[in-house]
Amino acid sequence: MLDQNTLQVIPLGGLGEIGKNMTAVRQGSGMILVDCGMAFADEEMPGIDIVLPDFTFLREHSAELRGIVLTHGHEDHVGAIPYVLREFNVPVYGTRITLGIVRSKLQEFGIKNADLREVKDGDRFDRGGFNVEFIHVNHSIPGAAAIALRTNAGLIVFSGDYKVDFTPIEGPPMDLGRLAELGNEGVLAYFGDSTNSERPGYIPSERTVGETLNKVFDHAKGRIIVASFASHLHRVQQVVEAAKRHNRLVGLSGRSMIRNVGIARELGYLDLPASMIVEDRDVNKVPDKDLVVMTTGSQGEPLAALSRIAAGTHRSIEVGEDDTVVIAAHPIPGNERGVSRTIDNLMKKGADVMYSPLVPVHVSGHAAQEEQKLVLSLLKPQYLVPVHGEFRMLKHHAETAMSMGISSDNIFILENGAVMQFKGDSAERLDNVTAGMFLVDGGGLADNSDSIMRERQQLSEDGMFVVIARIDAQTGALLGAPDVISRGFMDPQTANGLMDGSVELVTKTLQRTAKRNVTDWGQLKNEIRRDLSSFLSQKTRKRPIILPLIVEV
Amino acid sequence: MLDQNTLQVIPLGGLGEIGKNMTAVRQGSGMILVDCGMAFADEEMPGIDIVLPDFTFLREHSAELRGIVLTHGHEDHVGAIPYVLREFNVPVYGTRITLGIVRSKLQEFGIKNADLREVKDGDRFDRGGFNVEFIHVNHSIPGAAAIALRTNAGLIVFSGDYKVDFTPIEGPPMDLGRLAELGNEGVLAYFGDSTNSERPGYIPSERTVGETLNKVFDHAKGRIIVASFASHLHRVQQVVEAAKRHNRLVGLSGRSMIRNVGIARELGYLDLPASMIVEDRDVNKVPDKDLVVMTTGSQGEPLAALSRIAAGTHRSIEVGEDDTVVIAAHPIPGNERGVSRTIDNLMKKGADVMYSPLVPVHVSGHAAQEEQKLVLSLLKPQYLVPVHGEFRMLKHHAETAMSMGISSDNIFILENGAVMQFKGDSAERLDNVTAGMFLVDGGGLADNSDSIMRERQQLSEDGMFVVIARIDAQTGALLGAPDVISRGFMDPQTANGLMDGSVELVTKTLQRTAKRNVTDWGQLKNEIRRDLSSFLSQKTRKRPIILPLIVEV
Repeated sequence: MLDQNTLQVIPLGGLGEIGKNMTAVRQGSGMILVDCGMAFADEEMPGIDIVLPDFTFLREHSAELRGIVLTHGHEDHVGAIPYVLREFNVPVYGTRITLGIVRSKLQEFGIKNADLREVKDGDRFDRGGFNVEFIHVNHSIPGAAAIALRTNAGLIVFSGDYKVDFTPIEGPPMDLGRLAELGNEGVLAYFGDSTNSERPGYIPSERTVGETLNKVFDHAKGRIIVASFASHLHRVQQVVEAAKRHNRLVGLSGRSMIRNVGIARELGYLDLPASMIVEDRDVNKVPDKDLVVMTTGSQGEPLAALSRIAAGTHRSIEVGEDDTVVIAAHPIPGNERGVSRTIDNLMKKGADVMYSPLVPVHVSGHAAQEEQKLVLSLLKPQYLVPVHGEFRMLKHHAETAMSMGISSDNIFILENGAVMQFKGDSAERLDNVTAGMFLVDGGGLADNSDSIMRERQQLSEDGMFVVIARIDAQTGALLGAPDVISRGFMDPQTANGLMDGSVELVTKTLQRTAKRNVTDWGQLKNEIRRDLSSFLSQKTRKRPIILPLIVEV
Repeated sequence: MLDQNTLQVIPLGGLGEIGKNMTAVRQGSGMILVDCGMAFADEEMPGIDIVLPDFTFLREHSAELRGIVLTHGHEDHVGAIPYVLREFNVPVYGTRITLGIVRSKLQEFGIKNADLREVKDGDRFDRGGFNVEFIHVNHSIPGAAAIALRTNAGLIVFSGDYKVDFTPIEGPPMDLGRLAELGNEGVLAYFGDSTNSERPGYIPSERTVGETLNKVFDHAKGRIIVASFASHLHRVQQVVEAAKRHNRLVGLSGRSMIRNVGIARELGYLDLPASMIVEDRDVNKVPDKDLVVMTTGSQGEPLAALSRIAAGTHRSIEVGEDDTVVIAAHPIPGNERGVSRTIDNLMKKGADVMYSPLVPVHVSGHAAQEEQKLVLSLLKPQYLVPVHGEFRMLKHHAETAMSMGISSDNIFILENGAVMQFKGDSAERLDNVTAGMFLVDGGGLADNSDSIMRERQQLSEDGMFVVIARIDAQTGALLGAPDVISRGFMDPQTANGLMDGSVELVTKTLQRTAKRNVTDWGQLKNEIRRDLSSFLSQKTRKRPIILPLIVEV
């Protein structure tokens, strides 16, 4: 517990990475979380489904936790909610659509007693000793907000994810007026989105994508298929608008697309009349020229609808000559190969494929440098902490701020777990708290298990080699030849001589140990492992995991 | 064997992919190969070092094989040479630097009796019933050539990898005059580089990178480190030129950088006086402001010099405040994360990091659309086969050609193994021959082994579960409790109950089979595997490889 005039802000995720944004804000006996996101596993975490921020700090301070404030409904800001609520059932604050998305997620997890509290742009409320204000921003999902927190130490602002769009598809432009008022009131610290801080200039309005879509619809002869993030409801709305203008009905494909469109229609965020919607099972009853299908799979995910359409394994939707496919998204780093394969497969089927950057069918939802300068000039923060991004993005955000005259002494480039302490007018960085990754595997929250990841890496590269030796319980002598079995190691045919060689080698090892009267199983296994490992790596330059099994008979 | 007037061109690699370019050209009793490249393994081939074209067709037609013609010395055009020469010792034709690279590669493999025959630009020679001509082109390596083959069916041209650079760093611009003459003579078929066919316009001259480098050198205070492909000797030359102008010595780091610079200096392709070179062990004796280090690792490869410098694990080179690092390359798709991590690590050490596209420190070595049009307009080929590229790149190349009036009937988008047959004036596509991948693993040529790859995938995602049951040889009854061991499956602590549950389950399975007097081991194992698999996937949603072992006692 802190004293009433000490404020700590502790990013527990989202720094030095894209994803799992979560920041703890503490003062006196109260703590709130701003955002509660997840990240996707990368190729160094085989078999892992998703990644959460480490909960250790939350568990240690759970008595202080008063609530969670959500800036918007993207997975990297709300994806950890079910896991956190399972352990700490505190109120969750967000805009209507953000909570709609959270509610549907909680249903999936069977969590029924969540305390979800809807907030409107401009609303202010007190919680945990803080006064919380939601400020409207533009982003690639409706209902996105910046958060202003009034604390005893001063006013701090979290941008959330934002861009400045003067002609947004839905709702007003970002509330720059309110940001200016906050700036005049005096902002102690600003935690600003850095995702696009390497990009000079401005991000074009989402509306420019609509213009491209209209041109695509003008020229399309057959069926049109548009893939985008299911949460990008502005993009979906623009496809619907183009469909209206061109008299096409709208099919929906992909579980998350159907779910998000359902939520958005119900809550009034999407203007899509029921009469325009074609159910998955009915898409083939509509003539190709009268149909557009909105689908998931813009990232080339192997099981998503677009990949299945491209591979020809989708239940109802086929694509062919005269059809047009629009991939209205940019590949997230790491997904390039999957997207590339999807494009190739679609083209092989004869479809016209439009993708970014060759065709301007995507704009980013994150502010570029000139937008970052605009917000900095309005907020005039005393301290800047760049958030949401890899280190180099945080660094570029800092450089942009410095180019406007903000002193580098007042900019903090942090890592997850860093503790920023504000007291009076001063800001200080304290020692890090525990922050890292919780891996979620097979539907459950796994504790950190580096050794499992290392085993999987080794298994995936070099495979596994099992030796079974039968030993006389009385004498310790080897009975019969040992058996060897491998998986993921080498082609059994190529490896044939190797298997025989291994049997011989293990036989010799055990004859040697028997002579020395070695009966300790641990030692027997170590010697088998050592001899076999050096034999195999010499013959094949591979180091499979070796599992010696000794059976007493 | 074909008749004298039938020509077959069979791409055995490089179509629908980037890498392992190899094309067989047959006529009468003679066959030659144009290029002989490898590819790197992707994330779906765990543990695989490199990928070669399938040799089946070569083995079936080895008696016809008369020689190999190499367009240039990049791995994706020469990397399979040692493996091919081990099986078929035929003459290899290439320019001086190409053969220098091949020679060094053969040394590594201990191949001594290779018949390497140097060819100069403009040279013509007869081999295998073909007349072969080398034509100078620009690319990101010196000594690159297009190949014109005069056959009984007509003249065919392979571009190799090329760009049009009117102000190249070394040698003359691409020999457009000779291409024009060939076009006037009449080109039957053109096999053209498609790598950049999605890019409109022209690729800037390599010289523009030199201008950027000079600016970087103007402003650098401390040490400069430049990472690039070790084979990009023009880039290396430009770094050397900037070093000369700025009175810096040149350090070299990374095995392939040292090797390639050595070859290029020896053969006169690189102007780098010995007095400017600093040995690895001496770099720290040179003041930072007087040194530039050329290094490998531009692709973020974990073991390459730049990654080790970034991670602080390099033997001799450190980087810190005031130092400048230039990554003079673009990440190849799939390498983005590694490059990103390297940039972040370097920045965390305080270095200024310059990378593409933020700073123009890289230009491509492959022709964009306007250059492709230029070559097509000079060659005026009757038939076009786009090569070197993913399907969508081949498609775009075809579209570019169609925009110039070449009929789609005369353009063939092929896949590996397709047989193009030319006879008289007609071109026809025949049934595919065997073409695919040979995987190289642990230094040896592995036969195709999809099942091994599948096993490794499964092992890497879900791990492995071994059950050992001791059975009475007489009665088939289970003796004692079965043992279970897992690797890469779950955290042993979390999995604790699961292990006990598995032991119980297998005990029940074997009691059940004993009652039914099942003694067939295959059946016993199948029942164990089935019961355990459904138990584990129900509890964990994971499907480890299950290996039931039965030991008769």
